[in-house]
Amino acid sequence: MRDVAIIGIGMTKWGELWDKALRTIYVETALLALQDAGVDRVDSMVVGCMSSGLFIGQEHLSSLLSDYLGKNPIPATRVESACSSGGLALRQGFIEVASGISDVVLVGGVEKMTDVTGGEATYALGTAADQEYEAYHGLTFPGLYAMMAVAHMNRYGTTRNQLSMVAVKNHDNGSKNPLAQFPSKISVEAVNSSVLVADPLRILDCSPVTDGAAAVVLCPVDMAKKMKRPIIRIAGSGQATDTIALSSRRDITWLESTYLAAQKALAMAGRKIQDMNLFEVHDCFTIAEIMITEALGIAERGRGGKAVEEGLTSIKGKFPVNPSGGLKAKGHPVGATGVAQAVEIVKQLRGEAGDRQVKGARRGLTQNMGGTGGSALVHVIEAD
Amino acid sequence: MRDVAIIGIGMTKWGELWDKALRTIYVETALLALQDAGVDRVDSMVVGCMSSGLFIGQEHLSSLLSDYLGKNPIPATRVESACSSGGLALRQGFIEVASGISDVVLVGGVEKMTDVTGGEATYALGTAADQEYEAYHGLTFPGLYAMMAVAHMNRYGTTRNQLSMVAVKNHDNGSKNPLAQFPSKISVEAVNSSVLVADPLRILDCSPVTDGAAAVVLCPVDMAKKMKRPIIRIAGSGQATDTIALSSRRDITWLESTYLAAQKALAMAGRKIQDMNLFEVHDCFTIAEIMITEALGIAERGRGGKAVEEGLTSIKGKFPVNPSGGLKAKGHPVGATGVAQAVEIVKQLRGEAGDRQVKGARRGLTQNMGGTGGSALVHVIEAD
Repeated sequence: MRDVAIIGIGMTKWGELWDKALRTIYVETALLALQDAGVDRVDSMVVGCMSSGLFIGQEHLSSLLSDYLGKNPIPATRVESACSSGGLALRQGFIEVASGISDVVLVGGVEKMTDVTGGEATYALGTAADQEYEAYHGLTFPGLYAMMAVAHMNRYGTTRNQLSMVAVKNHDNGSKNPLAQFPSKISVEAVNSSVLVADPLRILDCSPVTDGAAAVVLCPVDMAKKMKRPIIRIAGSGQATDTIALSSRRDITWLESTYLAAQKALAMAGRKIQDMNLFEVHDCFTIAEIMITEALGIAERGRGGKAVEEGLTSIKGKFPVNPSGGLKAKGHPVGATGVAQAVEIVKQLRGEAGDRQVKGARRGLTQNMGGTGGSALVHVIEAD
Repeated sequence: MRDVAIIGIGMTKWGELWDKALRTIYVETALLALQDAGVDRVDSMVVGCMSSGLFIGQEHLSSLLSDYLGKNPIPATRVESACSSGGLALRQGFIEVASGISDVVLVGGVEKMTDVTGGEATYALGTAADQEYEAYHGLTFPGLYAMMAVAHMNRYGTTRNQLSMVAVKNHDNGSKNPLAQFPSKISVEAVNSSVLVADPLRILDCSPVTDGAAAVVLCPVDMAKKMKRPIIRIAGSGQATDTIALSSRRDITWLESTYLAAQKALAMAGRKIQDMNLFEVHDCFTIAEIMITEALGIAERGRGGKAVEEGLTSIKGKFPVNPSGGLKAKGHPVGATGVAQAVEIVKQLRGEAGDRQVKGARRGLTQNMGGTGGSALVHVIEAD
């Protein structure tokens, strides 16, 4: 397998982009990544998207997006793994370059979620759960994560304020990210008194519904060196699955797929979690970030709430988590999120993250997951 | 890149499987393939599915199917390229094994299409067209292929009877395939007098709506040799895209993506089209098979109708096309079709195709496409 570099990144402002079609959002972002990479040649494209079928009545994104990007007739592949579709696209692109079948691969993630009503969006997102055993019976994702939160609070003493501190930290970070959907600071009191969605989760515990895209350009490290690009490489990639239904899990306070994917990615990179300087993780709900820090080994099991309370995961902490603002403040266009995580890590490793820069960052980790953790993708990204 | 073998195949009876869920159909088929391969170990799964979101309200198939197959926590990837999702799954599995990242990869394709009304199925299939420029304006796939047929008939003199002969040939072949949805012989007269769907296409020109799955097991050729398996290898893989909208094509009587994907697959295999002993191609409509034979180079441009009329593409002809019965008789569960094509080629190369056996078959080619040819996947499969 060949070593793989990320030579270009692209992302535009996320939000409710009612004036732009999915194809437009994707193309604008992909062109930024190609411009950043300084290449026009693309051998193959991989696109992560969760449910363009339900959100905009459009499948066959491989053909649509290669067409609108002007890259026909190159191979184009769409992958789906619910909210980890972007992370999966990154992995597929990585495998394509590593295998030798393609040299320059454009990896994108995109979702257009605001062309439907809130109820329709909730239904579409619910298709990441087990339709027959969960969704049909009325369970939605706030409900599922609420159950995980209650269990975590009961078992480990995680507090309401600790949940809120995750949101406050990520909005603090996001306030320094001009591309974030909600670049506004919030307070613990504001989270605690926001509208209840599914007890104990309140609206400010939840990531928003977002339109957006993100893209990266991959090529072999040897080619990147010839192009005199700074070498930022995908040093490790890990993917794992878990039961789709929460009720089938051995322990709903533990994200086994994240744990396993991280172990695999770190092993491939020859690193330990302590070697990582920053983390972009899947905080679809505040409780998710707490559980992810435990599964990654940033915090001990049951101590994820304490970790945020003690500042361990703030930008100036030992293990900065979600300097971009995370899904919470940056937004969560579900298919794009996993790619945007890589975009942020590359910005940080290049020292281009402005006011939210993690000082001296050389190695970062992305963690992207689908459903309640039914799938997980972890990547280790390093600067030479 | 490592050489890749197909060591197991699985397929169950296709049809209107109202008593079975998508997950059930998939698992039954996958278990057959694993049993056939004689392995229990699976390192990774790839699943092709076009639109489980619209057909059954279920995305996140990676998690669902690895879960129900009992293979958690292995990596599972769902790919989508409309009706060529199965061919794309085969290619992704091929790349995974070739790259060295996984040894034993289970490639599956599945679609459950009969849980919705006919109108809903037509809508879901229409998402393979350009939603904004084609589907919103009332175009459906019979209409799109009807325009291609009219153009082909006008330019090249292709006749109504030649279209019918494609259907008659494929039903003749399908009548010898016990897994086919419609294993019944039909006559030219029956096709010519069947209900008009979109002039000139009649109902017996169209492939049906089908529930079904297909699966193959891949591993490195070296591993297959150690397992003392007969060596059947994926010698070439080609993928290409074209404009999604038919109106954007230079020539609507020519399938450029199929032509390019075939050129790539044959070049990788070091073969010419004349070296192939049989073909499984994407006859979603009778006119499609005629145009595909031209794009592959089995027939000269404009002579695809003549080729079927002269018996060139019958089982005993020089270039047998769709010995399985094709999409027309075997059925067309859209995400499964591309994988089922590989299943048929392997059966033929093993000499296990019964009454529809192509004598002495050593090399076969699959051609799978999405939409009106907006994407195409071609594979060359050979027995050592």
